[in-house]
Amino acid sequence: MNDTIQSVNPSDDSLLIGGANLHSRLFVGTGKFSSHEIVPQVLEASGSQVVTMALRRVDWKNPQENILNYMPPNTILLPNTSGARTAEEAVRIARLAQAAGCGNWVKIEVVQDQRYLLPDNWETLRATEQLVKEGFVVLPYMSPDLGAARRLQDAGASAIMPLGAPIGSNRGLQTKELIRILIEEISLPIIVDAGIGRPSEAAEAMEMGAAAVLVNTAIATAGDPVFMAQAFRLAVTAGRMGYLAGPGERRIEAAASSPLTGFLQEG
Amino acid sequence: MNDTIQSVNPSDDSLLIGGANLHSRLFVGTGKFSSHEIVPQVLEASGSQVVTMALRRVDWKNPQENILNYMPPNTILLPNTSGARTAEEAVRIARLAQAAGCGNWVKIEVVQDQRYLLPDNWETLRATEQLVKEGFVVLPYMSPDLGAARRLQDAGASAIMPLGAPIGSNRGLQTKELIRILIEEISLPIIVDAGIGRPSEAAEAMEMGAAAVLVNTAIATAGDPVFMAQAFRLAVTAGRMGYLAGPGERRIEAAASSPLTGFLQEG
Amino acid sequence: MNDTIQSVNPSDDSLLIGGANLHSRLFVGTGKFSSHEIVPQVLEASGSQVVTMALRRVDWKNPQENILNYMPPNTILLPNTSGARTAEEAVRIARLAQAAGCGNWVKIEVVQDQRYLLPDNWETLRATEQLVKEGFVVLPYMSPDLGAARRLQDAGASAIMPLGAPIGSNRGLQTKELIRILIEEISLPIIVDAGIGRPSEAAEAMEMGAAAVLVNTAIATAGDPVFMAQAFRLAVTAGRMGYLAGPGERRIEAAASSPLTGFLQEG
Amino acid sequence: MNDTIQSVNPSDDSLLIGGANLHSRLFVGTGKFSSHEIVPQVLEASGSQVVTMALRRVDWKNPQENILNYMPPNTILLPNTSGARTAEEAVRIARLAQAAGCGNWVKIEVVQDQRYLLPDNWETLRATEQLVKEGFVVLPYMSPDLGAARRLQDAGASAIMPLGAPIGSNRGLQTKELIRILIEEISLPIIVDAGIGRPSEAAEAMEMGAAAVLVNTAIATAGDPVFMAQAFRLAVTAGRMGYLAGPGERRIEAAASSPLTGFLQEG
Repeated sequence: MNDTIQSVNPSDDSLLIGGANLHSRLFVGTGKFSSHEIVPQVLEASGSQVVTMALRRVDWKNPQENILNYMPPNTILLPNTSGARTAEEAVRIARLAQAAGCGNWVKIEVVQDQRYLLPDNWETLRATEQLVKEGFVVLPYMSPDLGAARRLQDAGASAIMPLGAPIGSNRGLQTKELIRILIEEISLPIIVDAGIGRPSEAAEAMEMGAAAVLVNTAIATAGDPVFMAQAFRLAVTAGRMGYLAGPGERRIEAAASSPLTGFLQEG
Repeated sequence: MNDTIQSVNPSDDSLLIGGANLHSRLFVGTGKFSSHEIVPQVLEASGSQVVTMALRRVDWKNPQENILNYMPPNTILLPNTSGARTAEEAVRIARLAQAAGCGNWVKIEVVQDQRYLLPDNWETLRATEQLVKEGFVVLPYMSPDLGAARRLQDAGASAIMPLGAPIGSNRGLQTKELIRILIEEISLPIIVDAGIGRPSEAAEAMEMGAAAVLVNTAIATAGDPVFMAQAFRLAVTAGRMGYLAGPGERRIEAAASSPLTGFLQEG
Repeated sequence: MNDTIQSVNPSDDSLLIGGANLHSRLFVGTGKFSSHEIVPQVLEASGSQVVTMALRRVDWKNPQENILNYMPPNTILLPNTSGARTAEEAVRIARLAQAAGCGNWVKIEVVQDQRYLLPDNWETLRATEQLVKEGFVVLPYMSPDLGAARRLQDAGASAIMPLGAPIGSNRGLQTKELIRILIEEISLPIIVDAGIGRPSEAAEAMEMGAAAVLVNTAIATAGDPVFMAQAFRLAVTAGRMGYLAGPGERRIEAAASSPLTGFLQEG
Repeated sequence: MNDTIQSVNPSDDSLLIGGANLHSRLFVGTGKFSSHEIVPQVLEASGSQVVTMALRRVDWKNPQENILNYMPPNTILLPNTSGARTAEEAVRIARLAQAAGCGNWVKIEVVQDQRYLLPDNWETLRATEQLVKEGFVVLPYMSPDLGAARRLQDAGASAIMPLGAPIGSNRGLQTKELIRILIEEISLPIIVDAGIGRPSEAAEAMEMGAAAVLVNTAIATAGDPVFMAQAFRLAVTAGRMGYLAGPGERRIEAAASSPLTGFLQEG
């Protein structure tokens, strides 16, 4: 494998969210890793500039063990409200995170369903409305639905994070059609969050026009998480480039890439 | 996009075909480009070490216009027998290519069907048998079928090149199940050739365990072929790394990546 | 084709909605047909007991042309609120339908999106809450989402009608994963509405455990709508029977259905 | 479920194979059933006119237990050469079947691969050539490939039986694209054999234009095989009718089936 590419980064292709100008379109999560030690290597290998983390994972009483210490400099922390079952709980977690010095970004995650951990769009909208008013940069995790996305947009969300499949399922873009419509109809960045299990699936989301993807389980449960983080990094870039390069049309029949006749007559 | 990755190339992951030790797993074709001028840029951007070309495309009477002049040094030329309808025609083209100084690699392409340009496995096998005897490094393009692949292997082919979808269709891995079986049951390298239309599809083929992919139309018909070649380069590496990293299992239900309870009680 | 089956109707497999005991699990719509004359033939061929209709289609000033005249006896009319953009408009349409003698069933359809005609789950919920209070049997058309379905259930809906794909697209079960989860997690009947374009897709929805399907465009735009209505009738029954019969498990490898060895030795 | 349809059988839609005029397009197999007793009920429920059976299953020494006794009158027996690994073995089995009074139809099944039980197209072709010469009505089971199908057609096969997925896998139409091409390019009847696991998948094959399907494992491994046989019977008819009725086109965007505006203004 030989990937010392020099010139693939058009300087104007960055993602603007909450005032930040992101060059990486791979967001990563920090859950499920077998040890804290591997997390910084994964973060570095991913090239990610936005890292999400459940506040529960922060070991407040044991600061030297704190995962926050492993965050690379210049990385944006995106605390999530995992564990919240209502808007009020999500708001409370967000405020605690901010008070603890985690900044003003927040990924809203409100889940009432315990089997598929699907986000509740109603509570998510209410939490978004409140936290935007309080000055947070709000990225809501949501069940892909155009009406919900429109309301989240109107409420001031900075991006929309629809799921591709249930969290941790590694099952890819099961909701592809709805995500396609969100990308087409919503002007906010669409960040596919949850379900992506393979680098190819991340690339496909980007080719569809997603602004970014968030990956956690697929990296954390890989045989070699650091290597898998690199794989996702390349895949996200590849998918983004594929989108920008303008893919050719699909055809039902064949179209010769080599001339079909004439060789033997002229050879 | 920020991809100045240093350490993703495990020195032991190379592809051995016909005595060559390949670091790139992206083979590219040279058909369908709007101009000769863009080809060398595409080849360089792709990082490819194996380039296929129909002999018809070589302008023997006008050597300074010859596409062979654009081949980067240290690139292996893989002449293809495009235009052949029988084993005999394919053998004749291969010999002419060799006589013209194109080396001893050959991609056998024997097509009798004019609508889908599907390869004929019978004629392909006969051509393979003959050309292996003559000392060629033979890579047969074939319709994915286990029995045919076994015979090509027994005949001394150096790799097997099943199609993902009809040539030039950009429709991806339509024959996924059969290719999966070939990868599992055949010990030769499996190189997916034809049909791949998006970087994500190339990545998926690699994640399945394909040894390499050959891409032509998807690059040639892209809005920016050079940029698309880079996208495919990254995607192939990403897919290969995903395969090597050992993907996590897929699950029907969700599995929390963040803890679901306990935060508020302990906050 | 020979389908004079006698004994396929277990007497206990009926669908109970709003006090009605339905034997047919195919609901049909009356839009888009080239002429009024064909509608009664389609209705009869479909065997449907529930027929949806936009009130606008009723020609109040020209009663003898009225499509209501074509309704077979013992068929339940399911007026829909097509054209409504808000809950209030939907409620108003439902009341008008009831006042006009169309009964107390209503399919709520509130659409704000003009390109994909996707239902708005928020307005749909509000209309459901109101109309249930007024004694209607409410069947809301909705964008598949577990949280929305739970709220509609709590509000007293009689069934949930998630879309498979945008109305009129004939693109099948694009939202399969979300519908699967609704079937598993919601105790109300799940009726797949919109998008089903082929009999096989209706059968698949039934095999997944859907309680019924609603089909309109696929029948109305077929070359022979009457014949297609019969095809859907059989497909829905086939899918339901497949579900009840208990399908065998899927396997990655083969499993011989015939013995593989021993014949020649013993023959 | 109410399926006493009267007029769905256009008298001119029959399938002509080997001189027989078939009204049922569902072929069934007799392997894997838990007991002999259930087989005649399954055959009757399926409405099938062609039944395949491995000769090994015939208990020659115990004639009263013989499955042949259970065959409904006017059913065509299609002995298969299951267990054969070469053309010669297949030919020998076919001759034995004929000598034993099983008629002159034969399904050629030559398998060398023990994991996926994939048919070997080379040996299958050789057996076809020989048995056609001997006057058999030959239906070869094959790995879907256009070149192989053309050769089988030229050799005098009466139909082509490509697999949808490995035998007994219940995984459906994994080879859909190749089967689609066979249906388009080959003038013989295409009968999808192996892999079909659900009634909806049988319907889909028929909608694609397959002439018939052969189902065994999906029925034999169902919770209620007799009921599942009825389900497949209806599904095959539904799919065939869907094909004949002329399906409407698929659209990316929505198309209203009900009028979107005007109601409230006129109500």
